[in-house]
Amino acid sequence: MRAVDLIRKKRDGGELTAPELAWLVAGLRDKSVPEYQWSALLMAIVWRGMTDAETAALTDAMTRSGEVVNLNGIPGLKVDKHSTGGVGDKTSLILAPIAAAVGVPVPMVSGRGLGHTGGTLDKLESIPGFRVNLSLDEYKRVLEHCGLVLIGQTAEIAPADKILYALRDATATVEAVPLIAASIMSKKLAEGIDGLVLDVKTGDGAFMQAYSDSKLLAETMCAIGRRLGKRMRALITRMDQPLGYAVGNSVEVVESVACLRGDGPEDLVDLSVELAAEMVLMAEKASSIEEARGLCRRAIADGSALERLRLVVEAQGGDPTALDDPERLPCPARHVEVVAPSTGYVGRLRARPIGQATVLLGAGRDRVVSQIDHAVNVILFKKLGDHVHAGETLATIGINNAARLDEALQLVRDAFTITREPPSIPPLILERI
Amino acid sequence: MRAVDLIRKKRDGGELTAPELAWLVAGLRDKSVPEYQWSALLMAIVWRGMTDAETAALTDAMTRSGEVVNLNGIPGLKVDKHSTGGVGDKTSLILAPIAAAVGVPVPMVSGRGLGHTGGTLDKLESIPGFRVNLSLDEYKRVLEHCGLVLIGQTAEIAPADKILYALRDATATVEAVPLIAASIMSKKLAEGIDGLVLDVKTGDGAFMQAYSDSKLLAETMCAIGRRLGKRMRALITRMDQPLGYAVGNSVEVVESVACLRGDGPEDLVDLSVELAAEMVLMAEKASSIEEARGLCRRAIADGSALERLRLVVEAQGGDPTALDDPERLPCPARHVEVVAPSTGYVGRLRARPIGQATVLLGAGRDRVVSQIDHAVNVILFKKLGDHVHAGETLATIGINNAARLDEALQLVRDAFTITREPPSIPPLILERI
Repeated sequence: MRAVDLIRKKRDGGELTAPELAWLVAGLRDKSVPEYQWSALLMAIVWRGMTDAETAALTDAMTRSGEVVNLNGIPGLKVDKHSTGGVGDKTSLILAPIAAAVGVPVPMVSGRGLGHTGGTLDKLESIPGFRVNLSLDEYKRVLEHCGLVLIGQTAEIAPADKILYALRDATATVEAVPLIAASIMSKKLAEGIDGLVLDVKTGDGAFMQAYSDSKLLAETMCAIGRRLGKRMRALITRMDQPLGYAVGNSVEVVESVACLRGDGPEDLVDLSVELAAEMVLMAEKASSIEEARGLCRRAIADGSALERLRLVVEAQGGDPTALDDPERLPCPARHVEVVAPSTGYVGRLRARPIGQATVLLGAGRDRVVSQIDHAVNVILFKKLGDHVHAGETLATIGINNAARLDEALQLVRDAFTITREPPSIPPLILERI
Repeated sequence: MRAVDLIRKKRDGGELTAPELAWLVAGLRDKSVPEYQWSALLMAIVWRGMTDAETAALTDAMTRSGEVVNLNGIPGLKVDKHSTGGVGDKTSLILAPIAAAVGVPVPMVSGRGLGHTGGTLDKLESIPGFRVNLSLDEYKRVLEHCGLVLIGQTAEIAPADKILYALRDATATVEAVPLIAASIMSKKLAEGIDGLVLDVKTGDGAFMQAYSDSKLLAETMCAIGRRLGKRMRALITRMDQPLGYAVGNSVEVVESVACLRGDGPEDLVDLSVELAAEMVLMAEKASSIEEARGLCRRAIADGSALERLRLVVEAQGGDPTALDDPERLPCPARHVEVVAPSTGYVGRLRARPIGQATVLLGAGRDRVVSQIDHAVNVILFKKLGDHVHAGETLATIGINNAARLDEALQLVRDAFTITREPPSIPPLILERI
């Protein structure tokens, strides 16, 4: 096989075979196919696209570039959830303990904040002592002991994806659905899961802002997973305004615990329960989605879900008392208010500038190596459709230093649009695939 | 400027500016823009194409990546010719001395054989002692002394093209008209010429087999040259059967000398005179193409063109007596005949398999480093439209060893199609641009 012939084939709109893609990915790893050939291929893929068969084969090759965890020793169908990323999206911290409490083993490998969005790992690390980097042995042990485990991607998982991701970033070949889908799925499939529930975001605060793009991504990921023998389900959900009221790291842990106590914000609880119910159904712990929902709500009501979170925090080295006492979590030195400029309704609330404001203040990363400030946050006091009086608090910004406060204030102010008439509130869940 | 932003711009169909292209080419040279970014850009160019302004700017940047020869010290308009490559195409050896004899300074930088086509440098090197690698000083001196000079591309000329060409070859991005045009033109513009006559081949033996592709390439090269202040003229000519009767290296020198003596084959003489006449007209040595043609024919008839060839061969270290005595040139050990399988007309004669046969026998290169056998050849005895009797010689193959003779014989045999009716003979020159 010659890489140039395979590039030509894709350039001319042909379909690469599974052995060809496996050979190319192996060549990427051992450097026998140089990066300049891969980047030409990537651009040809952006141009010509990939069939579902090609995308699945690429995913499989990327998965097999590293260790594939074997969880056969743990009984039951192992199910994870993946979100394409949003602002205030802390559903993982809520639904993983819920599904585990209902009896679904949840081996969850999460990511860090990217761009304007937050990352589950960053949120977890705001809990004192919590370790997200476990060995594969510990990973299995915690899953067995707690029914769930919450870790970051290890170096052994899908190393080809790491190389490809850096190359895509440098060559303007990030925004291609087959490449995005293969990147996400290759990591998920290495976890040893039997099924995956996807939360594909759409709208202002999502990476895919157009509905059609989000839908295509959801369909592509489901097609990949199913071709590779996994149970798949995707919900396309709105990410126009942040989920819940809390945006930041430690403050999102606090809000997640509130949900598990039964007093969380409705949108966040509803979405978390819905995703958890899909996991429960997928793992055959219920025979209908209604029954699954009921089991999930009960796991909140009877405290068993919160107990699971406490258990896993302790198992991964974290201080479980921090879940009961928010003062044990990093808190910002002071809060600055953003008030309503006029009386009316919150006619629009954009998630993206809110996310950007928190990143600016240190909650996220400009570069991979940046240090995170777990304390900074934006707390919303009003959400879409709420009535406000001029001068009333719309949001507070929690900071440790005022370095980029003005920019952050401007972003949060601009995120709100006050209108005379109440807006219509669109449904949170748009479609199931 | 960031390379990734420029790649994205081209990926999305945007137009790169001259400063952006100059920055990218400079980055290719000093490695600040890595090859993997350039190869993604190349594929985006294959996809999106380039405007004439972009192609001219890219060409200019590539030209300026190396030395640009200053020939202002030599009086008159300097004109070169470039052919896109064919089989039996030895017009350079004929027209350069003709144009020089009429008073046009001809600074000619030629290439080596590529694929199934022959190269002017390989043909020249079959003359004992002939040196194609001159210093830039020698280049100017020979041009001044002889009125023409025949050299190969030096390392100082358009080095960015060398890097880009290797990268295109490895990434399936060769076949894009703007990139082909920029590659050819960047080298030609570095020679210090005022004008360029292009012989763009079309048909079976050409790289661009489709007429529309050949025309687009001709138009693109003319547009680049004119934007960069050069006089440009392109002839689109048929390359279906070989030009003349001789295909090989030393044998093409012999046929070229025959043309300059006045007894060359009609197609070859006509095309050489036509291209030389365009050069004469471009250099303002005649006021009409008819007058230019007359001057060129006279330079053959009075022996002045042949005298020029003798002069330049001597100036570049070659043995001028080899032009009069073909036995001083490399000759093959033996000849093998290909005979007509039936009586009729040569209804089709394909140039490509004839070229492939000579390359197979050693007249051309599989790889850049291969050694050339200047003696091997295919000599045609019959051409398109000729009547033949069964058993009559169609061609001979001149070889030094029989290693790949069977394959070569098969190729030459298959190149001929004998038909009952005489074919129509299409014109050689199809269009002038």
